[in-house]
Amino acid sequence: MMAFEQRTKAYQAYIQRYLDAYIAQWETEPQQKLFSAMRYSLLAGGKRLRPIFTFEFCRLCCGEWEKAAPLAAAVEMIHTYSLIHDDLPCMDNDDFRRGRLTNHKVFGEAIAVLAGDALLTDAFSIAAGAEIPGMDMARVIGTLAGCAGSLGMVGGQVLDMLSEERECTEQEILDVQSRKTGALINAACAMGVLAGQGSEEQLQAACGFAGLLGLAFQIRDDVLDVIGNAADLGKATGMDEGKNTFVRLYGLEKCQTLVQEYTEKAVGLLDVFADTAYIRHLAKAMTCRNT
Amino acid sequence: MMAFEQRTKAYQAYIQRYLDAYIAQWETEPQQKLFSAMRYSLLAGGKRLRPIFTFEFCRLCCGEWEKAAPLAAAVEMIHTYSLIHDDLPCMDNDDFRRGRLTNHKVFGEAIAVLAGDALLTDAFSIAAGAEIPGMDMARVIGTLAGCAGSLGMVGGQVLDMLSEERECTEQEILDVQSRKTGALINAACAMGVLAGQGSEEQLQAACGFAGLLGLAFQIRDDVLDVIGNAADLGKATGMDEGKNTFVRLYGLEKCQTLVQEYTEKAVGLLDVFADTAYIRHLAKAMTCRNT
Repeated sequence: MMAFEQRTKAYQAYIQRYLDAYIAQWETEPQQKLFSAMRYSLLAGGKRLRPIFTFEFCRLCCGEWEKAAPLAAAVEMIHTYSLIHDDLPCMDNDDFRRGRLTNHKVFGEAIAVLAGDALLTDAFSIAAGAEIPGMDMARVIGTLAGCAGSLGMVGGQVLDMLSEERECTEQEILDVQSRKTGALINAACAMGVLAGQGSEEQLQAACGFAGLLGLAFQIRDDVLDVIGNAADLGKATGMDEGKNTFVRLYGLEKCQTLVQEYTEKAVGLLDVFADTAYIRHLAKAMTCRNT
Repeated sequence: MMAFEQRTKAYQAYIQRYLDAYIAQWETEPQQKLFSAMRYSLLAGGKRLRPIFTFEFCRLCCGEWEKAAPLAAAVEMIHTYSLIHDDLPCMDNDDFRRGRLTNHKVFGEAIAVLAGDALLTDAFSIAAGAEIPGMDMARVIGTLAGCAGSLGMVGGQVLDMLSEERECTEQEILDVQSRKTGALINAACAMGVLAGQGSEEQLQAACGFAGLLGLAFQIRDDVLDVIGNAADLGKATGMDEGKNTFVRLYGLEKCQTLVQEYTEKAVGLLDVFADTAYIRHLAKAMTCRNT
């Protein structure tokens, strides 16, 4: 257990320093307002789950995990940009995120749009700068952009928005969620395998794991929206009422069972790796979480 | 002259078909509203100057210009996303662009934000899919993202926005414009040289050319805003009044001289290439344009 916390903290501290240094290096540029807005959301804390997956899958493939930092950072920047744009008045119109004012509430809408745009674009700059001999850069960028773009996360956002007006089928909800949340967790895990230059089999296992875990994570999120405590979560609860959530689809009890089932199936795919105690523990911690 | 028009049309037709096919391939995906919004702005016409530069610099480096289509498309998609986000109510709040309703006027703000996000992200998917043996993919992506991100186009947007409230120095205006317009023209030219696997000397020449031509182009734009005809331009004129334009900085007459000077300097850098009649003609056509 101690080892689990230690490694998690090492990963979190490393990505924090890396992201901090990325923004700090431009301190003599004139567009400091842009960098302030980027920093505000990028260094707002959060659990850094996606970078942790990238680091850990790199390590599981026997790569030096620190070398995966540019890819871990890229995924986190894409995650952050998506939150900034999501919170905009024309989208979810949220005033708070992780217990702090949302980006546009602090910097104004125009800067928030541009800070999101810059984080998304710079993510590809950083990923392209990853110097890992033998790594397939075209595949790294293709996977990252594929998971984040019109077929992945952004596509999921649109489907989610369009589904608000009507009741969806199980298949539709699974599709929306696997794109909206799953795609970027998938990218995070895939980035780790690509950085560690794992086998095709390992890549497939990591992506399968990500898909199932993403679902478990999202179902848990829907459950917490119903039973969670707003102060613990740092955001308003009960917001999903009337939406096409898993709780509405399955009911609370079945959701709890499904979270467990998906998590176990996800973890079951990890046999192509050795030394999986950490990732198994992480998967369970993520899907039993209360915050 | 005939040859000039013929080649221009060949480039324009090729990129149009390529972009059309890119969107069309997803016609069985459920998020058709997203693809409709992307298509609306991406296939709205426009002169396709950036793709033309990519194709032509690839050809000037003795590459097969058709092979550069993914990179040309990527630059055009980034250009298009920037226009969609620029037009948003929280930014320039424009209702018309190229004589048609702006994206958010047709699809709503939320979809417009997401269509822009998807175009930007998918640009990197497409670029990563360029199969040109021997091409340095890390450099392609790094250059594209560098020109488009916080140090390039988005940085320029922020500086432009912040400069609206006060009178800027010549150096500040040059800096804003070289980022805001110049950076993506730079990317377009650099993509062509990288696709054609030109020398470092050719890359430097192309970037120098792009920088100077971008300035000439922007000064001409400012001039047209004052003397141009709204119907010909497909957008409102006189919009820049009170803004930090080159016309305000230099006056109309000096602007006309500078457009010529910068264009000549730009063209003067092309000596490291052979067969430059087309690109010279293009540079002059761009900076003498009335629309």
